[in-house]
Amino acid sequence: MIIVMKKDATTSQMDRIVSWIKQMGQQAYISQGEERTVIGIIGDTRSLDHTLISQFDGVENMVPIEKPFKLANREFHPQDTVFNVGGVAIGGERVVSIAGPCAVESFDQMLETARSVKEEGAQVLRGGAFKPRTSPYSFQGLGEEGLRILSRVREETGLPVVTEVMQPELVSLVSSYADVLQVGARNMQNFALLHAVGKAQRPVMLKRGMMSTMEELLLAAEYILLHGNPQVILCERGIRTFETYTRNTLDISAIPLLKQLTHLPVMVDPSHATGKRELVEPVSMAAVAAGADGVVIEVHPNPEEALSDGSQSLKPEQFAAMMKNLKPVAEAVGRKL
Amino acid sequence: MIIVMKKDATTSQMDRIVSWIKQMGQQAYISQGEERTVIGIIGDTRSLDHTLISQFDGVENMVPIEKPFKLANREFHPQDTVFNVGGVAIGGERVVSIAGPCAVESFDQMLETARSVKEEGAQVLRGGAFKPRTSPYSFQGLGEEGLRILSRVREETGLPVVTEVMQPELVSLVSSYADVLQVGARNMQNFALLHAVGKAQRPVMLKRGMMSTMEELLLAAEYILLHGNPQVILCERGIRTFETYTRNTLDISAIPLLKQLTHLPVMVDPSHATGKRELVEPVSMAAVAAGADGVVIEVHPNPEEALSDGSQSLKPEQFAAMMKNLKPVAEAVGRKL
Amino acid sequence: MIIVMKKDATTSQMDRIVSWIKQMGQQAYISQGEERTVIGIIGDTRSLDHTLISQFDGVENMVPIEKPFKLANREFHPQDTVFNVGGVAIGGERVVSIAGPCAVESFDQMLETARSVKEEGAQVLRGGAFKPRTSPYSFQGLGEEGLRILSRVREETGLPVVTEVMQPELVSLVSSYADVLQVGARNMQNFALLHAVGKAQRPVMLKRGMMSTMEELLLAAEYILLHGNPQVILCERGIRTFETYTRNTLDISAIPLLKQLTHLPVMVDPSHATGKRELVEPVSMAAVAAGADGVVIEVHPNPEEALSDGSQSLKPEQFAAMMKNLKPVAEAVGRKL
Amino acid sequence: MIIVMKKDATTSQMDRIVSWIKQMGQQAYISQGEERTVIGIIGDTRSLDHTLISQFDGVENMVPIEKPFKLANREFHPQDTVFNVGGVAIGGERVVSIAGPCAVESFDQMLETARSVKEEGAQVLRGGAFKPRTSPYSFQGLGEEGLRILSRVREETGLPVVTEVMQPELVSLVSSYADVLQVGARNMQNFALLHAVGKAQRPVMLKRGMMSTMEELLLAAEYILLHGNPQVILCERGIRTFETYTRNTLDISAIPLLKQLTHLPVMVDPSHATGKRELVEPVSMAAVAAGADGVVIEVHPNPEEALSDGSQSLKPEQFAAMMKNLKPVAEAVGRKL
Repeated sequence: MIIVMKKDATTSQMDRIVSWIKQMGQQAYISQGEERTVIGIIGDTRSLDHTLISQFDGVENMVPIEKPFKLANREFHPQDTVFNVGGVAIGGERVVSIAGPCAVESFDQMLETARSVKEEGAQVLRGGAFKPRTSPYSFQGLGEEGLRILSRVREETGLPVVTEVMQPELVSLVSSYADVLQVGARNMQNFALLHAVGKAQRPVMLKRGMMSTMEELLLAAEYILLHGNPQVILCERGIRTFETYTRNTLDISAIPLLKQLTHLPVMVDPSHATGKRELVEPVSMAAVAAGADGVVIEVHPNPEEALSDGSQSLKPEQFAAMMKNLKPVAEAVGRKL
Repeated sequence: MIIVMKKDATTSQMDRIVSWIKQMGQQAYISQGEERTVIGIIGDTRSLDHTLISQFDGVENMVPIEKPFKLANREFHPQDTVFNVGGVAIGGERVVSIAGPCAVESFDQMLETARSVKEEGAQVLRGGAFKPRTSPYSFQGLGEEGLRILSRVREETGLPVVTEVMQPELVSLVSSYADVLQVGARNMQNFALLHAVGKAQRPVMLKRGMMSTMEELLLAAEYILLHGNPQVILCERGIRTFETYTRNTLDISAIPLLKQLTHLPVMVDPSHATGKRELVEPVSMAAVAAGADGVVIEVHPNPEEALSDGSQSLKPEQFAAMMKNLKPVAEAVGRKL
Repeated sequence: MIIVMKKDATTSQMDRIVSWIKQMGQQAYISQGEERTVIGIIGDTRSLDHTLISQFDGVENMVPIEKPFKLANREFHPQDTVFNVGGVAIGGERVVSIAGPCAVESFDQMLETARSVKEEGAQVLRGGAFKPRTSPYSFQGLGEEGLRILSRVREETGLPVVTEVMQPELVSLVSSYADVLQVGARNMQNFALLHAVGKAQRPVMLKRGMMSTMEELLLAAEYILLHGNPQVILCERGIRTFETYTRNTLDISAIPLLKQLTHLPVMVDPSHATGKRELVEPVSMAAVAAGADGVVIEVHPNPEEALSDGSQSLKPEQFAAMMKNLKPVAEAVGRKL
Repeated sequence: MIIVMKKDATTSQMDRIVSWIKQMGQQAYISQGEERTVIGIIGDTRSLDHTLISQFDGVENMVPIEKPFKLANREFHPQDTVFNVGGVAIGGERVVSIAGPCAVESFDQMLETARSVKEEGAQVLRGGAFKPRTSPYSFQGLGEEGLRILSRVREETGLPVVTEVMQPELVSLVSSYADVLQVGARNMQNFALLHAVGKAQRPVMLKRGMMSTMEELLLAAEYILLHGNPQVILCERGIRTFETYTRNTLDISAIPLLKQLTHLPVMVDPSHATGKRELVEPVSMAAVAAGADGVVIEVHPNPEEALSDGSQSLKPEQFAAMMKNLKPVAEAVGRKL
């Protein structure tokens, strides 16, 4: 870390900082520039609370040099993390296709969707039993009944299931039904929840907050890893910008950049990112071309009757067409679908 | 609500929508434009799940006409909501000054801060016992020990206390110590937490998420109101933008606009919004001039030793100077401090 | 267009608006909802100055129904616009690769780059003679000398040339040397410049402003089309967001969405969007997979000596590798490279 | 400047950089950390093209330590810049109120507005003769006829006039009529225009681009100062964010921060920032409380007939009320209105 001092910082102000750094068990060096003096800290400053330094008199600014995440950092863990979910390798050569409706509505709806997406090559089933909704007047999900439905559909079809958990005290309940626990974008910095899924025995799909930086996403993953759970999937689902023609702006560069920064698998959710059915296929193609390890696609057998987010759901025949078009793209980048 | 149909939408597509609207107990009208047809829904569409409509074939877009929040809406509740916190009127003529350190560190630190800010006119004490921190390696707060300290300091000084609660299952614990429950910016859409504080017997200070629109803030407040708690304070604390000279961008227009849209009290946290000590005073002046019902100010007796967010904490003498300068501004807008 | 009236709007306020609409030669209809009344305008409201309506007393809001651009609108021009630049079809089946350094530095540098990128399949040469630079202390380009170099290199290699023009009064000068006039992101709403290139006899590559919506980009194109120049290439080059790991955030969804909204060719500049050399290839792959008609790539024979933007320039061997990897992606989406 | 090397950077990569730095006439020092090595440059690096360094192999990142603007920097020019516009001191004790319609429509409209705002205390008249408009179908201003009107109204009322100039080649024309040249938000990085107004003999009001950082605003001002014009007014007019209830988000913290960073006067345009008439007064109050040297207010005698931006224009009686309320706020912060 580099500490930039104010132009008029005094020697005694610098001395106080240097002695504090030494007290913290780190080494410091001072570099006198023409206008400013900077103090460098040698050594791993991740465990140092950076905000502690900013309050010293005379400090203008601090510049971190090391990335603040460690367990998620590819520098210390060069090989890709690959793990198994119900027989499906996540993070491996094959691009994983996760499909299903936004919300679980009924056993018949889920079973019909599951059979149809499985036939087209989907390897994992998705569906929300607990739904985070901006308005208290919107449908909030079937709750545990939804979990039971998901579990029964898995038995019928063999597809492993990913579903969202919104509260720490429900992690064990959801874990008893689901194969992968999803932490939604709005909960990416719900630290109690990160702690709880970090203790769980299930892989976690961690969605990037819509106004979270990649660094914050990686630090959220770090919470989960640090609490003992090494199986984390990062999922880019669009960030919030000024553009209004799409619901969010999918950050395509995040895919190759996250793959460089971390060893964890990286997936993309084009349905939530765009909010528009007709953009799901081209954006999925882009995601796979950019190196995504999987795509998460909303599919509903009858989107006109969907209780949630219908406008971005593909119909089964649209999903089938997409999978057909996605295959050559996956192969073009040396992978399978 | 207005439903805009695609240019090539068919009559039968429109008929399906109109008959669905009627089924939902609402009236519809059709208006044929030159290029597009629009379908209007007459009546209160708040309880209608808007996403349900978007999935009908032929729909291009939907435009809500009514604001989606009702209990928080000033249209249905024209007079200001004013309530009492430990003898302090929130939302009344007097601008409320809430002050204290970011995190509770020790009894002595809290007591010293509390006495000093009280002397300068602060009416409520703040301090975090549970701290949401981006990095798992940062100080996470003293937990219940911090709550006990806050409670003892209240006994000593008479200042009511506001502190953050981060998990639904801790709402009753925190309520047993605190006068006001704070829901932090990162938890603004933690719906389980909103539900829990909605059931609590304590006023709630709801901070705007740094990625949240005013409408989302009001819908988050609506969750709390709908679950039975009418005492909600909205708090603007800066939104995330591309600007890097400040930590966040305080949305000053949000103050008068929220005051128009809702009857709830509106406060401002200039310390977190700016992240810079030297901006706290001028931004507080602006907030009061724009009509804020209160300001939330970080004050630390010795910011160089603060365990959290020191760079934005005022020293007691800076707080004293600020209060002195704030007073004439409050009076200039017909209020007291 | 839909005009939403305030809850307490009076009949006479509505009457004034309706009679004004009729005066403007349009038809109006009134729809009374439970809480609000809306006034619809039937007919093409593009030529109506929307802001004129907002000032009427009683108006709460206005909602445009039609897209405000007409000449650029695919609804009125369903077939793709394809045109020829020095023998290269822009907007056709073949994905066009445009390559070259950020700034023209010398004849040797340009010739070396041009030969090397041509060998790898680039069809158009790029290079800036006039450089818009944030700081007045940065290199501002060689000016006309740079244009002469570009022109000589075209003679040597046969590659058509695209270069930026920054001022209306230089359009004819730049046109005399270049095959395609580039309007840079910072000038996307320099309306005098749009007017001038609209009068020019050269195709225009219009880069999306980093602060501009897709609608604003299309309206900027509309300026050029309206002034008589039908040959406009839209270029997505990243928008400004809060993310700091990349320079800008490439809006990948803009590609398929622009292709739906307009008949104009759409290209992508991954070099400026990401600002990082190692992201150029994966993001280019994504762009082609999403349907881009071309990519604009910075290549420099010796990036360490580049006078501008070196960090995002590919070395010739990196460009060669990228072209090799891009080819199967183009074929996977039914195109050629 | 600090250059952060990649973890695996080699000694010879560092040596090349150090020798290049020396070649540029600067001194370098190397600091070896545990994971990374950083190279510091001692001395003023403003004239060094930063992007030149980023292309060296082995460089991960660069961190500027000094602010890149010099002439605009308060560090080198501690006292406030105050200058005279038609008898009005800009940047002095008195907060300057600039008022008038968005666009010049007719002599009568301008004269009526000018007389009315002068009576209420406005010191400068504003009005656009050349209007930058997003859509080519919107009213683009009266052009030189508008300038003549402004000039005649100045003769009648004695109010100095500020008006926008959009093209370098029109600077001398506009200068012959106007007292202050306005550079609009969309042209903040139109460098040819900055150059031209830098050569002009008139003060310049430079509006912050809606997606420009404060640093970019200061660098744009630096262009003008460097070309010889020391009389620059910075004007905050809202930045673009995800919030949709207001047109832009006024960055209130920019006022005190710019006042710290630069000696130039700082004004605020609440009309364009908010886009809503009812927010103009509270936001103006906030701006003055935060330390603004002036406010720019749209006033139209008959906003229902305005040809541009009516929804944010105050009626004369609203302007009168605002000025009455603004006065005590100015006095509360030790200034006059």
